[in-house]
Amino acid sequence: MKRTKAVVIIGDGLADRPVPGLDGRTPLEAADTPNLDSVASAGECGQMDPIGPGVRPGSDTSHLAILGYDPFKAYTGRGPFEALGIGMAVERGDICFRCNFATLEGKLKLSEDGGFSGARVVDRRAQRISEGTRELAQAVDGLAVEDVTCYVKESVEHRAALVLRGPGLGPRASDVDPHEENQPPHAAVGDDEGSQKTARVLNEFTLRSWEALREHPINKRRQEDGKLPANIVLPRGGGIAPDLEPFAHRYGMKGAAVVETGLIAGIARYLQMTVPEVPGATGGADTDEIALARAVLRMLEEHDFILCNIKTPDLGGHDSRPESKVEAAQKVDRLVGFVRENCRSAIHIAITADHCTPISYGDHTGDTVPVAISGPNVRPDSVQSFGERAVTAGGLARIRGSDMMSILTNLMGVQEKFGA
Amino acid sequence: MKRTKAVVIIGDGLADRPVPGLDGRTPLEAADTPNLDSVASAGECGQMDPIGPGVRPGSDTSHLAILGYDPFKAYTGRGPFEALGIGMAVERGDICFRCNFATLEGKLKLSEDGGFSGARVVDRRAQRISEGTRELAQAVDGLAVEDVTCYVKESVEHRAALVLRGPGLGPRASDVDPHEENQPPHAAVGDDEGSQKTARVLNEFTLRSWEALREHPINKRRQEDGKLPANIVLPRGGGIAPDLEPFAHRYGMKGAAVVETGLIAGIARYLQMTVPEVPGATGGADTDEIALARAVLRMLEEHDFILCNIKTPDLGGHDSRPESKVEAAQKVDRLVGFVRENCRSAIHIAITADHCTPISYGDHTGDTVPVAISGPNVRPDSVQSFGERAVTAGGLARIRGSDMMSILTNLMGVQEKFGA
Repeated sequence: MKRTKAVVIIGDGLADRPVPGLDGRTPLEAADTPNLDSVASAGECGQMDPIGPGVRPGSDTSHLAILGYDPFKAYTGRGPFEALGIGMAVERGDICFRCNFATLEGKLKLSEDGGFSGARVVDRRAQRISEGTRELAQAVDGLAVEDVTCYVKESVEHRAALVLRGPGLGPRASDVDPHEENQPPHAAVGDDEGSQKTARVLNEFTLRSWEALREHPINKRRQEDGKLPANIVLPRGGGIAPDLEPFAHRYGMKGAAVVETGLIAGIARYLQMTVPEVPGATGGADTDEIALARAVLRMLEEHDFILCNIKTPDLGGHDSRPESKVEAAQKVDRLVGFVRENCRSAIHIAITADHCTPISYGDHTGDTVPVAISGPNVRPDSVQSFGERAVTAGGLARIRGSDMMSILTNLMGVQEKFGA
Repeated sequence: MKRTKAVVIIGDGLADRPVPGLDGRTPLEAADTPNLDSVASAGECGQMDPIGPGVRPGSDTSHLAILGYDPFKAYTGRGPFEALGIGMAVERGDICFRCNFATLEGKLKLSEDGGFSGARVVDRRAQRISEGTRELAQAVDGLAVEDVTCYVKESVEHRAALVLRGPGLGPRASDVDPHEENQPPHAAVGDDEGSQKTARVLNEFTLRSWEALREHPINKRRQEDGKLPANIVLPRGGGIAPDLEPFAHRYGMKGAAVVETGLIAGIARYLQMTVPEVPGATGGADTDEIALARAVLRMLEEHDFILCNIKTPDLGGHDSRPESKVEAAQKVDRLVGFVRENCRSAIHIAITADHCTPISYGDHTGDTVPVAISGPNVRPDSVQSFGERAVTAGGLARIRGSDMMSILTNLMGVQEKFGA
């Protein structure tokens, strides 16, 4: 049989709940989406639980599941995905942490038995410092503790990530961040031998971050300006970079990810998928959806599978602006339309969302998302439009995010048979 | 509550995808199936993923799942199911291999350290030898190596199976079959102590198969006729015969399997189900479906549960002949009709397929299969016909193969309560 290619187009947070201001319709139901409806008409539709029924997904866990990686195994803590999201070169087995630049008052000491004393955290976010964190991160990046290298990179505002790389490190070390103010940092403790080493390195790194930052020119200037210094790095949320099989090994085909957010790009790069630059893809309401579509078409020339995530629907949800979410749905529609019109060969197109971000809630929820799959070999059902409720009559019934790759590789003719 | 009996009738590979030559209908949708439609009308319908959404099932893994045995645990490799399929008496713990009769050139030696030399495989299939393999298998069947007995039986063409039975054997030994020609056999190696014993026995068996076959009259005659001799047995695909609880123990009722293929018969016998001979059941397009139906009715007298597999729809799929698959669907229909008309008591009848074998694909695919269950206690839904798409509106929604026995034993009133 002829093998086909597939594109999964994910409207980030596209699904929603009924909105009173839209006459009880969802933004997707209210939007004018002829191309999405055409995929639904030509294909098989249904509902999808990105993780499981009612489970509130993150964009990271949902994309892992949709790419066929069990998020309950892969997602060992926020740390690795925070680091991947800001473009750090994470390797399998690294121990990764989210961090804050914070303000410490006093003279920090680390006793022989590993406890912190002599100082307290007075602001866990150093007044939400927004400038100079790149220089502060550079001042602590690359520190060596025992045989471990500590990599640090700034994220937005006071946030940063820490990657520990070295032999014999375990993932279960407690947070140094005390999670409340007017306390000394909490000395990390480890659950097992490897994690005890991690805790030891983490505590020493924390002390040395203070030593490196307390007199840093950025902090001197802040203090001259009457601001609190960002004079310590406080790690939390540790996790081990998971041992995920590269996409091409797992599926025997080349995959690419046309995406706008650092987090999804980081996950795709970790799976060794191709992640092209897309000029015009801003991740905002002004993003150029046709540029995304062109990137998908370009990637299709050399790849068998393309995941495309367009971020803008999620923003309308988080900001609770129905009209901008309606417009975002129409952007997704134009993206899908451009891909369909300009694709030279018969491919499979799956359209869906990674989660709901309801206008009424302002954050991700665990409701189902709609899904439609068109292309060769599908059994078209009676659904004629792409909406949260219209698809419930579809032939896919109710699937999970983790079913997506099996369903697609089956349709594409690239899956091994299980048995005889 | 009164206990009832149940029959599951499986049209092998019956499900399909839309066929252009059938006006976009599937063969099942195009066929005239009043009895299947009557079961659908009277019962509850839905879609079934034999293994999981999108997963391409084998007939073996699918039947294991439908009988309530987890194929991911039971299916340790092709070997045991190949041996069961050709009627060998496999016992729990046996290490089983698929084999080829092959052609070796040279004088085979097995060195002290376990490597083969002095000869090379010139044809892995001995010109697809089709006659005389029974005699060749008999010449090596029952060989004793150390305290292990090696059982060999011929399958179709150049194929055979090898069963190693003895103490302390492990399942993880590599293939002796070099998988390409002009190489010596690959000496097997084992992953652990038990598997090292298996490897040792396997290598010695291979050498002795050559010693037993090189001068065999069948091979002398082949050489006189200008054909390559089938002078060695090359094992591959080893697996351990799994520890599956017998059907009657697991469910507290007697089960029988009215089936046409060696593979399904082998699985049923391994579960200690009754497997009657059915004269007229050919496994082909000319099979006598009424003979199968009569066997089901006969088995119902002394058993509570009957699995019936009719093979012919699968053949139309593998051969990509729509019209023969339509006819095969009508054979399934007549089988179901005869059972329903002639059954003396109120029983449950489930009709389904073990997988799709689409006309357009020619092999098994991972699409859902339709399922309908009629009989006492069901809650009939609105579905009026039995087809891949019609059932998607049914009350069963989307179930898995592994749900079938729970659903049936619940309806039959033979299931223990979980909890108080």
